[in-house]
Amino acid sequence: MITSPDNSRIKEVVKLRDKKKARDNSGLFIAEGLKIVQEAPEEAVQCVYCTGDVYEENPGLAERFENRLETVSSGVFAKMCDTETPQGILAVIKKRMLSADGIVNDEKQTPFILFLEDIRDPGNLGTIVRMSEAAGVTGVIMSKGTADIYNPKTVRSTMGSVYRVPFAYTQDFQATLSLAKNKGIKLFAAMPGGEKNCWEQDYKKACAFLIGNEAVGLTPETSAMADEKILIPMSGKVESLNAAIATSVLCFEAARQRRQE
Amino acid sequence: MITSPDNSRIKEVVKLRDKKKARDNSGLFIAEGLKIVQEAPEEAVQCVYCTGDVYEENPGLAERFENRLETVSSGVFAKMCDTETPQGILAVIKKRMLSADGIVNDEKQTPFILFLEDIRDPGNLGTIVRMSEAAGVTGVIMSKGTADIYNPKTVRSTMGSVYRVPFAYTQDFQATLSLAKNKGIKLFAAMPGGEKNCWEQDYKKACAFLIGNEAVGLTPETSAMADEKILIPMSGKVESLNAAIATSVLCFEAARQRRQE
Repeated sequence: MITSPDNSRIKEVVKLRDKKKARDNSGLFIAEGLKIVQEAPEEAVQCVYCTGDVYEENPGLAERFENRLETVSSGVFAKMCDTETPQGILAVIKKRMLSADGIVNDEKQTPFILFLEDIRDPGNLGTIVRMSEAAGVTGVIMSKGTADIYNPKTVRSTMGSVYRVPFAYTQDFQATLSLAKNKGIKLFAAMPGGEKNCWEQDYKKACAFLIGNEAVGLTPETSAMADEKILIPMSGKVESLNAAIATSVLCFEAARQRRQE
Repeated sequence: MITSPDNSRIKEVVKLRDKKKARDNSGLFIAEGLKIVQEAPEEAVQCVYCTGDVYEENPGLAERFENRLETVSSGVFAKMCDTETPQGILAVIKKRMLSADGIVNDEKQTPFILFLEDIRDPGNLGTIVRMSEAAGVTGVIMSKGTADIYNPKTVRSTMGSVYRVPFAYTQDFQATLSLAKNKGIKLFAAMPGGEKNCWEQDYKKACAFLIGNEAVGLTPETSAMADEKILIPMSGKVESLNAAIATSVLCFEAARQRRQE
């Protein structure tokens, strides 16, 4: 059992928790919580840290992770975790490496892609990824200015979808949009000032939604590439919806249409 | 200018910020941020506190609020506000008093009501209220176990909808549901184990959605009163959606249908 917060492995976990650069350099991230650790793909789990209590209450952990499992004192766990009411377990996991081009070129299913441009809030991003899996989104492509999907808060808010939804960052957002356009994927830009009613569009064919930053929306370069600029008709005096809410309304409208085939 | 955090008026604001009981007893709440103060109904604003900077940058404030405006030092403002990056302005505002029965009995428009049972997260509640206005919800009725809509975080997340969406708490949730049922309002309970597809229902007539607690969903007593138990069809391995996301998907499906008349 590790009882010192100065242990080098504990310091490594803290770095992975706090520093995007450490995650980028190592290709690793941390996932905290019993359910999210249990849902992690077997081969991707590098190491599991848990308290003695969690170890005793979950005999399956030792069986499953064997020499990849390490117990730590409650005091050490409190230092290394990211939550205020810790569940006493976290794992260090290998990142998945997909390419944006690969997602666009995937022909196994009719593309239904989310392009996220500079979504900044880690919680919003996690909620969008979780909702994407439920709505049947085939891939999430993010601009380099989007929050880090491997931020511990984001990982937690995905509730495990981070392991299952195909996603990738692109260094050149417009180039990836061009590629999608050339593949015949129709690009719908979600904009408060959009010209078309989002409920009068056909999302059954290959399509993608372009979602902008929480405060400033899509950049002019990105919205200029859209095939259609759409809006969600709204009542009252509301100027805009929360980014995750707006994205969900659009994605589930597409899901609704796609189930009616 | 108030420069001491020990000033009795400042202490009063801090109580309104932190204690539901203080808000209940006084019938007052606080709203923080320039936009949300500016959107407050004229007659409901009891007092506005702002820093000298905000006062100078917004000459309209003094004109509008006159002797209801009080300047405070930045240090005092930091003590009385609820945010980490304060905008330097907040207002003490009179609560709106509506009754749940009044909302159910309102016949000015075809009822489209949200019944919230024990939604606990202040941010979720605020997001739901903001989204409700945009979706054309005619009233939000909350169980007494629901978070306080006048919590400063909730007020902020409504982005001003707290002034415009009709809402009320009910001491007897089931009795209010009965009243709605007797008025011919069709009750749709949103449940992961629902029997009916949410996209195959008619929401154009008088209807209401019943939304349960984030962790445990609707109580058996409440779901037993529903006319239909509906689910949002989901792909992948997602077990449930965030409460605010699920509520939005349902409310905007109703909004979509109601615009098609």
